[in-house]
Amino acid sequence: MTQSILPIDQQWMRHALALAAQGKGLVEPNPMVGCVIVRDGKPLAEGFHQRFGGPHAERQALAALPADCDPAGATWYVTLEPCCHTGKTPPCSDAVIAARPKRVVIAAVDPFSEVAGRGIDQIRGAGIDVEVGVCEAEANRLNAPFIKRVRQQKPWVIAKWAMTLDGKIATYSGNSQWISGESSRRRVHEVRGQVDAIATGIGSVLADDPTLTARPPGPRTAVRIVMDDKAELPLDSKLLKTRDAAAVYAVVRGDAPQQRVDALRQAGVGLIVNESGTRTGGVDQLLNWCHDQGMSNLLLEAGAGAMASFFEADAIDEYHVYIAPKLIGGSAAPGPLGGIGLSQIAQSPQLEPLQVESIDGDLFVTTRRVSRG
Amino acid sequence: MTQSILPIDQQWMRHALALAAQGKGLVEPNPMVGCVIVRDGKPLAEGFHQRFGGPHAERQALAALPADCDPAGATWYVTLEPCCHTGKTPPCSDAVIAARPKRVVIAAVDPFSEVAGRGIDQIRGAGIDVEVGVCEAEANRLNAPFIKRVRQQKPWVIAKWAMTLDGKIATYSGNSQWISGESSRRRVHEVRGQVDAIATGIGSVLADDPTLTARPPGPRTAVRIVMDDKAELPLDSKLLKTRDAAAVYAVVRGDAPQQRVDALRQAGVGLIVNESGTRTGGVDQLLNWCHDQGMSNLLLEAGAGAMASFFEADAIDEYHVYIAPKLIGGSAAPGPLGGIGLSQIAQSPQLEPLQVESIDGDLFVTTRRVSRG
Ligand SMILES: NC(=O)c1ccc[n+]([C@@H]2O[C@H](COP(=O)([O-])OP(=O)(O)OC[C@H]3O[C@@H](n4cnc5c(N)ncnc54)[C@H](OP(=O)(O)O)[C@@H]3O)[C@@H](O)[C@H]2O)c1
Ligand SMILES: NC(=O)c1ccc[n+]([C@@H]2O[C@H](COP(=O)([O-])OP(=O)(O)OC[C@H]3O[C@@H](n4cnc5c(N)ncnc54)[C@H](OP(=O)(O)O)[C@@H]3O)[C@@H](O)[C@H]2O)c1
Repeated sequence: MTQSILPIDQQWMRHALALAAQGKGLVEPNPMVGCVIVRDGKPLAEGFHQRFGGPHAERQALAALPADCDPAGATWYVTLEPCCHTGKTPPCSDAVIAARPKRVVIAAVDPFSEVAGRGIDQIRGAGIDVEVGVCEAEANRLNAPFIKRVRQQKPWVIAKWAMTLDGKIATYSGNSQWISGESSRRRVHEVRGQVDAIATGIGSVLADDPTLTARPPGPRTAVRIVMDDKAELPLDSKLLKTRDAAAVYAVVRGDAPQQRVDALRQAGVGLIVNESGTRTGGVDQLLNWCHDQGMSNLLLEAGAGAMASFFEADAIDEYHVYIAPKLIGGSAAPGPLGGIGLSQIAQSPQLEPLQVESIDGDLFVTTRRVSRG
Repeated sequence: MTQSILPIDQQWMRHALALAAQGKGLVEPNPMVGCVIVRDGKPLAEGFHQRFGGPHAERQALAALPADCDPAGATWYVTLEPCCHTGKTPPCSDAVIAARPKRVVIAAVDPFSEVAGRGIDQIRGAGIDVEVGVCEAEANRLNAPFIKRVRQQKPWVIAKWAMTLDGKIATYSGNSQWISGESSRRRVHEVRGQVDAIATGIGSVLADDPTLTARPPGPRTAVRIVMDDKAELPLDSKLLKTRDAAAVYAVVRGDAPQQRVDALRQAGVGLIVNESGTRTGGVDQLLNWCHDQGMSNLLLEAGAGAMASFFEADAIDEYHVYIAPKLIGGSAAPGPLGGIGLSQIAQSPQLEPLQVESIDGDLFVTTRRVSRG
């Protein structure tokens, strides 16, 4: 299938992927998709899926064609298999076929079961050359949250923390503001503005009284969730004071004091009652709940305790770690992941090679859990 | 003084600095020095100080001139003020003057009190244009260990550790092999082969029985030092078994059991008795001892306990941190710096912006303590 891939195909596909990525935070729960129409080595038009419910990338590209341009005989580069079903928009496979391309190059098959190869079949059936798999790994990486949602019915979880060069997220006395610099924090706010939910632990709320909103706001407004076994969320916390800006939920245990639970409910806090009684059970339940709400991404910004319960539930897909040129020390000062931890290095979850970017003296390190197949 | 610095001067000086750096691990306790002789925009010859006791950079450059080349009227770029006293070699200022340059460009003044500006005065006195301060910061950075030795009579201390992305140097059960990958470890061995001493703590020796030799060997063979309050160093440890490869010293407290101290002495271990009774006192004493032995650099590869005693003594100049794409977790799993730690983030020592390099999926992060003036 990949015998006839040319270097030039990869070049155009990378361009289409870069277009697709511009939809981040705007198109979810849809996948990000980009499209370039090329003839005689020149792009005739390009487009990408710009917002949920809006036209797909292929139709955006067609709409961008100059008025007098018939794209017949062109090569199309599309980062995801064109859809063949009528959803919010009519099927794209029809539109592609109607434009009479000579060749259609596709990065990845749509994992969505209503499409899954049938868009490709339709185009091939119309006698058009179809190449699948060009930059497939990059495309699947870009849409990993979408693929997880479709396959596992769970949101993509990004764990974020800021630590000193000696791996501390706070001093032994609980001081943690600020570890990372302003530019790093600005980056955190950008991510906050792209996700559907931001979760923290009650320990962080009691220690730092965070707001967990994106400032300035981004394309989406995340709900705020507190892992709060005993329903201790203070009624005068900033989270509740800013309830007009974004909804607040608490994950409480079934045996949390009824009075506290009622008080939270009256204060407008959404309640997710963890019936399992275990912390990892609560994490699983939260992720299922997020999926049922149509959420694609959850950003976890918590202390060592809540972070550990997600880690122990093997629920974290991606890591955003800010490392500051500071040193704190202290055997009792918390690291990012509390709990008991693993007993052998070899038991560590497998992570991708660390990616790094310098941000004003800090480092921004990212990696992902190597997918479990 | 820096009015007439040209971009071209900086370019040649950077080249001279790159030459100088090739002496790392070979010239200490001397400074690293590089020299380029340029005329009409072309290098006539270049040289650097290649080994302790060997010819200085200026003489190396002169020796490298083609047989028929009279360097009169050239511009010299030297990273450190030419010496004007007879040490292991005759003064370089004489040799420079004899070559009749038009101009001599110098990066930094020699902090060594027997030179300290007098080399410059001599050359100026001979009617030659002298420019001082071109790439001065880079030059002082390169020779920071030399400058510290001259000014503070102490060796330069590099603290090295390998940690997981969640800041752990071992699991709660003490497992720590291996956190970083093979390529990172190869880099550690390179640094080991450039320093005069490698220090660790008794905890690490008891847990991991390390050898602390450079494999393959580098330009120098470091002595190995164990911070060992109670003289617990096992007589059958790999350190003692490899005593033929490199000397072993122990820093013991004055009240360590006499029998153990005698046993170590008999096994050929050099003893440094910490009379102060405090750990930070022991660190100070060790550093003074290193200086008295003519040592320029000490590499600290210890667990959280010994690392903390150097941190608390504010004895660490440079940090080499390897970060692996692994996660361990655990509130009781050790981070790099134990002890009590600082209570406020703002008390952190000031560090330079973090420098980073990717090594096969790991990160190699370096920084330095911002100098205390
Ligand atoms: N540098 C950073 O990036 C950063 C970020 C956040 C926080 N921090 C610092 O971290 C410290 C707080 O750490 P922490 O460990 O106390 O806070 P935390 O992780 O935010 O909260 C821990 C608490 O959350 C509850 N919890 C955990 N998992 C749960 C689950 N699955 N379901 C329901 N509840 C759950 C538990 O409450 P119960 O004990 O009541 O069961 C637990 O004690 C503060 O010093 C803060 O400044 C630093
Ligand atoms: N990942 C890495 O880079 C790395 C590197 C090294 C070690 N480790 C791990 O770290 C763990 C060992 O940590 P650790 O804290 O026990 O070991 P350590 O720091 O190597 O040794 C600590 C001991 O050294 C002694 N000590 C400390 N400062 C001293 C001083 N100034 N003078 C004299 N003695 C002094 C103390 O002995 P007394 O208590 O007897 O007073 C202290 O308990 C092991 O699990 C090891 O695998 C990891």
